[in-house]
Amino acid sequence: MPFVRIDALHADQSRLDALGNAVQDALVETIGIPPDDRFQVLVSHDGVSSTLRYDNFLGIHKDEGTVFIAITLRSGRSVALKQALYRRIAELAQEYAGTEPRNVLVNLIENEPVDWSFGNGVAQYVS
Amino acid sequence: MPFVRIDALHADQSRLDALGNAVQDALVETIGIPPDDRFQVLVSHDGVSSTLRYDNFLGIHKDEGTVFIAITLRSGRSVALKQALYRRIAELAQEYAGTEPRNVLVNLIENEPVDWSFGNGVAQYVS
Amino acid sequence: MPFVRIDALHADQSRLDALGNAVQDALVETIGIPPDDRFQVLVSHDGVSSTLRYDNFLGIHKDEGTVFIAITLRSGRSVALKQALYRRIAELAQEYAGTEPRNVLVNLIENEPVDWSFGNGVAQYVS
Repeated sequence: MPFVRIDALHADQSRLDALGNAVQDALVETIGIPPDDRFQVLVSHDGVSSTLRYDNFLGIHKDEGTVFIAITLRSGRSVALKQALYRRIAELAQEYAGTEPRNVLVNLIENEPVDWSFGNGVAQYVS
Repeated sequence: MPFVRIDALHADQSRLDALGNAVQDALVETIGIPPDDRFQVLVSHDGVSSTLRYDNFLGIHKDEGTVFIAITLRSGRSVALKQALYRRIAELAQEYAGTEPRNVLVNLIENEPVDWSFGNGVAQYVS
Repeated sequence: MPFVRIDALHADQSRLDALGNAVQDALVETIGIPPDDRFQVLVSHDGVSSTLRYDNFLGIHKDEGTVFIAITLRSGRSVALKQALYRRIAELAQEYAGTEPRNVLVNLIENEPVDWSFGNGVAQYVS
């Protein structure tokens, strides 16, 4: 169910894959997402026709290695679970893709069970 | 008002158009969106500089024909209307674009009337 | 904290930058975002491998100069502040990028403080 968008700069295919795996594994480990519950859009920007803009908000230095991770998921995860998720994403992004933890932005958007259809035109969570 | 993002793999322009039309027509038919209330971002991913990742969640087999559809719309649609919307999107994606219903992921994000400006710097729904 | 996606057609790098600056400056001026609190994904679509679809909803004429601006931010801004934000985005998009106000679509999605991690795997707003 989580729907994940990952945006990075000048990333090759293996780096995109590593980042996607980092987020998926973190979701599985921390908030109990089934391993095959994976829906990701992975995008590398060339800095010309598309790009990222960032600064050093809260004194956290960002550079070209910055990764933006936006996750849409059902509501109901506790503060503690979300904190565990952020921690694990940062750890695995470093381990799998060499991304420094300071460069990892994550934001979550919550919706409800009825807001998902995983195929066949059915709202599986409410059927 | 619905703001729609459609992501597909290796889609040519006519396929992107067909998918966009399928979603728009389904929104018009099922939840009463005006036909000219259309705001869509249609993206084909080349599988290298950008790509989709998916698996067989809930036993629904996905392949390279998978289409991710993310819709932001005002809150207030009933469960029944959302179910009708998913069903019609899947039907029309098959009819217009040859997309198999198993390959259609849809997720909805709801916001409020004040969260929209359709031009001229005005929040039309609350003005 | 606002996470901003800007989608335009046939935009070169300087136009993307101008649009990004317009939105950031408007956020700073109207709803008090710190100047360095900037997280933007700027995308130009070539009209073939990716594109925008739009119509003349509410009689507001859109053309190839259309810009779609989607902003995720924490909940809590008043109606008046959001109206001021839309107005200022339209003004600055025209001033910086020559975009006509009729061509500016904005939509907002709200989440909560716990839904943000700005780096280092920490939920800074709740820590």
